[in-house]
Amino acid sequence: MNVTTNAPAVSVGLLHDVAERAGGRVVDRLAEVHALLGADMALVDGELARVVRDGLSPATESAAHLLEAGGKRVRPLTVLLAAACFGPPPPAARELAVVAELVHLATLLHDDVIDDGQERRGKPTPRRIWGNAVSVLAGDLLLTHALERTSAAAPGSVLADLFATLRALVDGEVVQLRGRMVLDAREEVYFRIVHDKTASLFAWAARAGATIAGAATEAASALGDYGTHLGVAFQLVDDVLDYAGDPRATGKALLGDLTEGKLTLPLIRALVAEPSLAADVDAVRSGDRRAAQRLADAVRASGTCEGVRALARDETARALVSLEALPPSAARELLGGVARELASRVA
Amino acid sequence: MNVTTNAPAVSVGLLHDVAERAGGRVVDRLAEVHALLGADMALVDGELARVVRDGLSPATESAAHLLEAGGKRVRPLTVLLAAACFGPPPPAARELAVVAELVHLATLLHDDVIDDGQERRGKPTPRRIWGNAVSVLAGDLLLTHALERTSAAAPGSVLADLFATLRALVDGEVVQLRGRMVLDAREEVYFRIVHDKTASLFAWAARAGATIAGAATEAASALGDYGTHLGVAFQLVDDVLDYAGDPRATGKALLGDLTEGKLTLPLIRALVAEPSLAADVDAVRSGDRRAAQRLADAVRASGTCEGVRALARDETARALVSLEALPPSAARELLGGVARELASRVA
Repeated sequence: MNVTTNAPAVSVGLLHDVAERAGGRVVDRLAEVHALLGADMALVDGELARVVRDGLSPATESAAHLLEAGGKRVRPLTVLLAAACFGPPPPAARELAVVAELVHLATLLHDDVIDDGQERRGKPTPRRIWGNAVSVLAGDLLLTHALERTSAAAPGSVLADLFATLRALVDGEVVQLRGRMVLDAREEVYFRIVHDKTASLFAWAARAGATIAGAATEAASALGDYGTHLGVAFQLVDDVLDYAGDPRATGKALLGDLTEGKLTLPLIRALVAEPSLAADVDAVRSGDRRAAQRLADAVRASGTCEGVRALARDETARALVSLEALPPSAARELLGGVARELASRVA
Repeated sequence: MNVTTNAPAVSVGLLHDVAERAGGRVVDRLAEVHALLGADMALVDGELARVVRDGLSPATESAAHLLEAGGKRVRPLTVLLAAACFGPPPPAARELAVVAELVHLATLLHDDVIDDGQERRGKPTPRRIWGNAVSVLAGDLLLTHALERTSAAAPGSVLADLFATLRALVDGEVVQLRGRMVLDAREEVYFRIVHDKTASLFAWAARAGATIAGAATEAASALGDYGTHLGVAFQLVDDVLDYAGDPRATGKALLGDLTEGKLTLPLIRALVAEPSLAADVDAVRSGDRRAAQRLADAVRASGTCEGVRALARDETARALVSLEALPPSAARELLGGVARELASRVA
């Protein structure tokens, strides 16, 4: 179960991107990233591939489908970089990096069942290929496996922290589900969902990486704050891309959130500025494709996407401030690079 | 989180039944059961009611619905009785008793989504009332909560054992799901599902109760064997009742398993004796109600239900033999009573 074998050297795309965009001495930075984490990330990626392949089909086939559809592996990267702020990451950090992605995959599988999700990472969702039953089972399998790995690699506070995080993930999903039944366009509800469903796992990833590397409580807590702000910024940008992104680049259908009954910030703010849009919202929710196009145009014209992008930049700035509590290191710089990269992404 | 408060003195029906049927000195036995476990079970029942009520609706509402629909609480009782073989059960045994039922409820919630289950304990399944989304979430909530409680009450081998058990539970469900897609009438596949989906949790309950009470490895292992045989016997009887039970008493629709695509032993054996029944099996699986009635009559006429009942009695005898490795105690006698009770039940 441990990540100690020689895994294939798979691509670690984001790592390269971050280094390239970090500006300045690109070549040096790239070498630095590889020296720091390239081998670790390759092991993590190899182990993830092994875990999702190593079970009983069809449940794990669906998890493999999701894993192979891509994804940025931001959560494992966060675990490893947080650990690397305190020296070379111990093997247990790789275990927790695997856990962070497994938990993420498990929530994707269950979320798609809950939301009747149609597409994910530019491919049909596993539930559309194999059915809800398989997605429920595969999610259960990955979640249980992730907890088992954590209890072996970091049985103390990191495991307790993961339980609290899982509670938040489910709570966020419950609040979102309730909002789908009764249209609730309050910003506070939106931010609660963002914190629970997205930021909580980023925060855990950063805290867990720090803790397993032996960081002091204050440093782990600062990295937790970094993770929270990173997660909020990540979700804000994601929600902008649902209205203003290029589907060919994001791999997501435009207005996917809305057709699944989710109100996100660009629309919530557009509704405040133009309450008459509510009629189109109702129409989209009951399947009117033309209303969807009208609504997307109206949201883009309202200028709220720019406002939400600005909010994402604020959150990124807060993430960077959180890092200042840490001693300077190459890993700390790269965490800053990840935050900047995610805030400015267009896909 | 601990079961230490004064919970309402809820009914502990099975406890009474067992004592009444144990024969001989009924009044004494009843007093004995109460002296042993009545207060513990009341606390466990109160805590279960609190857990499923204490979250965010609608997810927990569905769990509460399932809990209040009844159920025999055999798994918590097994934990407590196993612990009581080694002295008064410690508070952590009550925690694990709560865990055993929470895991069971979580699997019921997810199983109903996987099987498109219509009825459970004589009531519509939660997914029919609140939808699949709620059942997925409520199951995730209960499962995570159960693991969190275990990691607090028994972080060592009992937790590791629970992870292995959860793996078995999911594996069993995967095998069953695959069998639903491709009709597989092999007895070995049936028994594998019974071991993974039912017996594994009974075995964990008995082992966990013993371990938390400080039992030696051999004694805990003997109780694990008891739990395995108890679980197999329980499931065999359940599967007979699906063909030969009185729906008013069992709270289950006749042929519920078959219409959900599950082949159980009474039918598997009837198919061996009379291969022409396969046509009716296909018809029932595609929704033919008259074929269902014909098939039920044919299975009952084939006499396989009696054979499966006899197998259940064999398993019960094995469960009783496993208990002989333990020092004599009132709790050991009651475990024997539970096994006999479950093997002869008609509902």
